Amino acid sequence: MTSAIPPGEFEIIARYFARASRRSDVLLGIGDDAALLQVPSDRRLVAAMDTLVEGVHFPLGTAARSIGHRALAVNLSDLAAMGAEPAWALLSLSLPESNAEWLAEFSKGFHDLAQRYNVALVGGDTVRGPLVITVQVLGFIAAGPVLTRSGARPGDLIYVSGIPGEAAAGLAVIQGQTVESEDSELLRHRFHWPEPRVQLGQTLRTLASAAMDVSDGLLGDLGKLCQASACSAQLELERLPASPSMRALFDAAASERFALLGGDDYELLFTVAAGRVPEFEALLQNTEPGCTRIGRITQRDPGQAVVRCLRDGRAVVVPATGYDHFSKG
Amino acid sequence: MTSAIPPGEFEIIARYFARASRRSDVLLGIGDDAALLQVPSDRRLVAAMDTLVEGVHFPLGTAARSIGHRALAVNLSDLAAMGAEPAWALLSLSLPESNAEWLAEFSKGFHDLAQRYNVALVGGDTVRGPLVITVQVLGFIAAGPVLTRSGARPGDLIYVSGIPGEAAAGLAVIQGQTVESEDSELLRHRFHWPEPRVQLGQTLRTLASAAMDVSDGLLGDLGKLCQASACSAQLELERLPASPSMRALFDAAASERFALLGGDDYELLFTVAAGRVPEFEALLQNTEPGCTRIGRITQRDPGQAVVRCLRDGRAVVVPATGYDHFSKG
Repeated sequence: MTSAIPPGEFEIIARYFARASRRSDVLLGIGDDAALLQVPSDRRLVAAMDTLVEGVHFPLGTAARSIGHRALAVNLSDLAAMGAEPAWALLSLSLPESNAEWLAEFSKGFHDLAQRYNVALVGGDTVRGPLVITVQVLGFIAAGPVLTRSGARPGDLIYVSGIPGEAAAGLAVIQGQTVESEDSELLRHRFHWPEPRVQLGQTLRTLASAAMDVSDGLLGDLGKLCQASACSAQLELERLPASPSMRALFDAAASERFALLGGDDYELLFTVAAGRVPEFEALLQNTEPGCTRIGRITQRDPGQAVVRCLRDGRAVVVPATGYDHFSKG
Repeated sequence: MTSAIPPGEFEIIARYFARASRRSDVLLGIGDDAALLQVPSDRRLVAAMDTLVEGVHFPLGTAARSIGHRALAVNLSDLAAMGAEPAWALLSLSLPESNAEWLAEFSKGFHDLAQRYNVALVGGDTVRGPLVITVQVLGFIAAGPVLTRSGARPGDLIYVSGIPGEAAAGLAVIQGQTVESEDSELLRHRFHWPEPRVQLGQTLRTLASAAMDVSDGLLGDLGKLCQASACSAQLELERLPASPSMRALFDAAASERFALLGGDDYELLFTVAAGRVPEFEALLQNTEPGCTRIGRITQRDPGQAVVRCLRDGRAVVVPATGYDHFSKG
């Protein structure tokens, strides 16, 4: 069942995706049955894979360049959460038709981000089908302690990078009727061009006790980190980083729901042991993006919610419905 | 844009895909942001990725267990073509709905094959969307000569494993009105349960001059091997291995078209330098599947087709239309 789409898989790969790599560890890249790669002998391999479906992970009509960027960014974000150094990527592209302009823009979005992080595209597949993009990324970390979701301990402080919620607010702007303004532009940008926190992840690798990236919403992802670490968490709502753009376009309640329940931020959520906080906060002065302390890890109490939200010290129940525009589709 | 499908990505992965691995080189498997893997320091990493789309790579209504098998098999076939030893896989599953029976069958097909080749599933993604499956496989090969598509030289003999065309004939049976018989069952089986030629590939690694797997049809794939090797080829049609089952159900002309143009065989197509043929043919006595010599690599002649088909020594033109049931869809 031949599935190549005109101008043909072979030509698409050659024209849009095969680029000479400056990485000497790519012994054989695109063009054979498989890629041949040299992992440094003192490094471990880190592997992640994420899929984007049109109409589920990005709205119909999203610019191809943004989709190419996002497909790689969400994967680099997974490597960032482990503190890994990105190296190689494989790309599977299922496309309804071969559209030269779309392919040129998509590959530009992909390659621009790949170049910034010195990632070589070494293989993959192009097939005819609905618009579905899967990227697999490979990276390295040194032997030694590993940054996972499961290392948080009671007393650790909880941090998040950037401003969670802005990407979800951006999606609401994209799908809504908001009048164009500098604020709406900034929020759209946050949805369309997520920035993987690769350097921050590498900094955190030996400093944080646990980390993950926020892809499905801060509250749910913090719950997963707590489950993996067999702990609970207190989230102090008044500490959530404020977004002037979000507040210019949405009320306080909507902004808080974006921050807690909105996905697509690809910020890092992490914990730092109390004893290492001074070292971490000193380092933090010079890092971009900024990181904000938003709560504390606690003992697991089976009678309580895994994540308890507090506002000015008093427990608050946050409704678990957010801006999940596609999950009912 | 949360995309988990009920019962939710987390539960699907835990229930159907997370299995304890017996591989000690999986330092961190399914469940964190990325997998952590230990590549042996004397090995190189081999990486391949292939995608299956419902209605393109397998017909609507194909049994889920067969789809799970195929998704891994087509990837292992890419590793086989490089002579690599499979180690790990990542799986991306885009599914319209969470159907427990489908997932149980799909994962059984995947895991049964994975277990046979000692492949650990270490990560991936499950999302809501059209039925699209991407698998990425990682394996090892020793440092040293690499088996690629580009090593064929004039005078090398061309071989193929198994009986090319039976999978395509099987698809015609599945889509047609053929009366059920032992022959039709065998051909269906060849389409539904492709067997990656992993051991053969490893045997060929230091014996063959070039190799690739036959996924898009023998004639086209031989053309790709020739292009990569800057050579031409003579294919001797009377040498194509005969399929009694194919001949029981189809006439000689249709059988030949299946063999030359049909895809989905996942057999190995490879070349052996004339000087190494005795060594290779002695070894061949004991290998399963059997391999058949089907032609010879020649100098590139710009005035000739890259692959020339001969029947009893006389040039024959093979029409380039085959049983590509989906490419016009």
